[in-house]
Amino acid sequence: MTETNRQYLLKARPVGLPKATDFELVSTPPVKPAAGEVLVGVEYLSLDPAMRGWMNEGRSYVPPVKLGAVMRALGVGRVIESADPAFKAGDYVSGGFGIQSHATVPAKDCTKIDIGLAPLPTYLNVLGMTGMTAYFGLLEVGLPKAGETVVVSAAAGAVGATVGQIAKIKGCRVVGIAGGPEKCRWLTEDLGFDAVIDYKAENVAKALRVAAPQGIDVYFDNVGGEILEACLAQINLRARIVICGAISQYNATEAPKGPANYLSLLVNRARMEGMIVFDYADRYHIAAQDIAGWMKAGKLKGKEDIVEGLKTFPETLLKLFSGENFGKLILKV
Amino acid sequence: MTETNRQYLLKARPVGLPKATDFELVSTPPVKPAAGEVLVGVEYLSLDPAMRGWMNEGRSYVPPVKLGAVMRALGVGRVIESADPAFKAGDYVSGGFGIQSHATVPAKDCTKIDIGLAPLPTYLNVLGMTGMTAYFGLLEVGLPKAGETVVVSAAAGAVGATVGQIAKIKGCRVVGIAGGPEKCRWLTEDLGFDAVIDYKAENVAKALRVAAPQGIDVYFDNVGGEILEACLAQINLRARIVICGAISQYNATEAPKGPANYLSLLVNRARMEGMIVFDYADRYHIAAQDIAGWMKAGKLKGKEDIVEGLKTFPETLLKLFSGENFGKLILKV
Repeated sequence: MTETNRQYLLKARPVGLPKATDFELVSTPPVKPAAGEVLVGVEYLSLDPAMRGWMNEGRSYVPPVKLGAVMRALGVGRVIESADPAFKAGDYVSGGFGIQSHATVPAKDCTKIDIGLAPLPTYLNVLGMTGMTAYFGLLEVGLPKAGETVVVSAAAGAVGATVGQIAKIKGCRVVGIAGGPEKCRWLTEDLGFDAVIDYKAENVAKALRVAAPQGIDVYFDNVGGEILEACLAQINLRARIVICGAISQYNATEAPKGPANYLSLLVNRARMEGMIVFDYADRYHIAAQDIAGWMKAGKLKGKEDIVEGLKTFPETLLKLFSGENFGKLILKV
Repeated sequence: MTETNRQYLLKARPVGLPKATDFELVSTPPVKPAAGEVLVGVEYLSLDPAMRGWMNEGRSYVPPVKLGAVMRALGVGRVIESADPAFKAGDYVSGGFGIQSHATVPAKDCTKIDIGLAPLPTYLNVLGMTGMTAYFGLLEVGLPKAGETVVVSAAAGAVGATVGQIAKIKGCRVVGIAGGPEKCRWLTEDLGFDAVIDYKAENVAKALRVAAPQGIDVYFDNVGGEILEACLAQINLRARIVICGAISQYNATEAPKGPANYLSLLVNRARMEGMIVFDYADRYHIAAQDIAGWMKAGKLKGKEDIVEGLKTFPETLLKLFSGENFGKLILKV
């Protein structure tokens, strides 16, 4: 092993938007895998809004990344050396590799992937956690029925675009909320959304009355804040609001703003429910089969926004919070 | 008919707390029932937090009370004259009679009640909408399981006290949040709550850590505001929050405050869901049977706070919002 593992450590807990100085890029020799471990040459890393939460101290659905530890991230790559019978050198795998070029991880935390079926980055997008989040969040928490209206925010983001396409497959009217004409055009022209709202150019509440004239039955929320309030104001009886994320709030330095009109849930006997994709791990394979089938049938497309260079990590991550990324944000190592 | 119908009309839409001048007391001759109607001599009227919402303009689960119309209220009384074969003079009935002494209403909107089974005011409390709200809200939305921790706010209010007792019957650990030592003592000593928090004397968040050491599985929210936030911060995985009311917000003249920590729903994969009792009308009789059985077995008690005099309506109503009432607030006509 003459190679070097370049890795980004979390050096400080960010206040507001993460800064370059919150991380440190270090070079170390790759760690030889012990029994039951594999050494993976990481090729692509998934950059996700949830990462911002992992940088904070305090109780959450996973423990925070420790200061001085490699920043947590999902990735895909190729086994360089295996000390576990389940894998051999050359196997393509996905797992929680962290922001580094060479990850030594327990074999049981890796999943073999078939690059004959789809290109490697797809396993970080619609065939990865992104696709799983969209699939289970929409279908198991949102419970859309054919003919209902589904609204999704951050619709040109990786999860949002997948949610919208699955909702179309299920026969719903789909309204996407996204920022900028290019993203909006992509959603309607390429992905078949019924309507889009450009939140940077339009009043969302007003535009929703036109785009969702029958009201909202399912709102898949990735953003929180004012857009959540605008949707709450226009939900139907027994509507379901899926709380998947709240990207507008992740970098808030003041207490985040709760939805002032949450009593719309009372008036409409509606439900707001949170979801975390890990809870569905025992059924990922079912979702992956469905999604792969839809991709093959041309009904579901993934779009990746791939940025080259592990060392760009701190600034590339910020594209998520500025809304600059277009499709699934991926770092090519 | 030589009697006079005294009635309170809604004269102005209140801003903040309702004032005496928002209502007008008028005397008119009782209206002779047309075919299909009954004239009811109203004996008791139910005063409920929800009435504040009915006074506001705007879309809700029922239309607002029109300016100049009799203020809407549930009541019980005795049929004076019937023009419908389903009722005869002397029958005891409940219905939406409004704040008046003589109500002429469609017979189909009245329900016959058996005063051999329970005294008349009980039909505005645990055998009325109060009991139905507690029963269906807790059991069908809260879905408590034996051994779980149920927290209820406004616990010494009519709905809250019933929720807590039903949760005890179902084998839960029950924590009530109420204001003042007298109410708190009643909840533990008379109703068998496991713990109480006096929100006027204690820090609710801190007290919850002691009173609900295993965390909160079901929170039945009657109040909103800071207490909702304190409970959201201590919910367990897959917790259910029943949104039944938000009395802390009903008289707000600024935009109500949403729960800033609603992302606890995400972290805990929890659910917040609104309920309106009217949705369960086809099963009121089932709930009433259960509740009557529990009363007979000494497992469920109702407490009424009865104020005499129709003319006291405007000031009596305010007891709800000051937290002054103790048990179900009822106006004796």
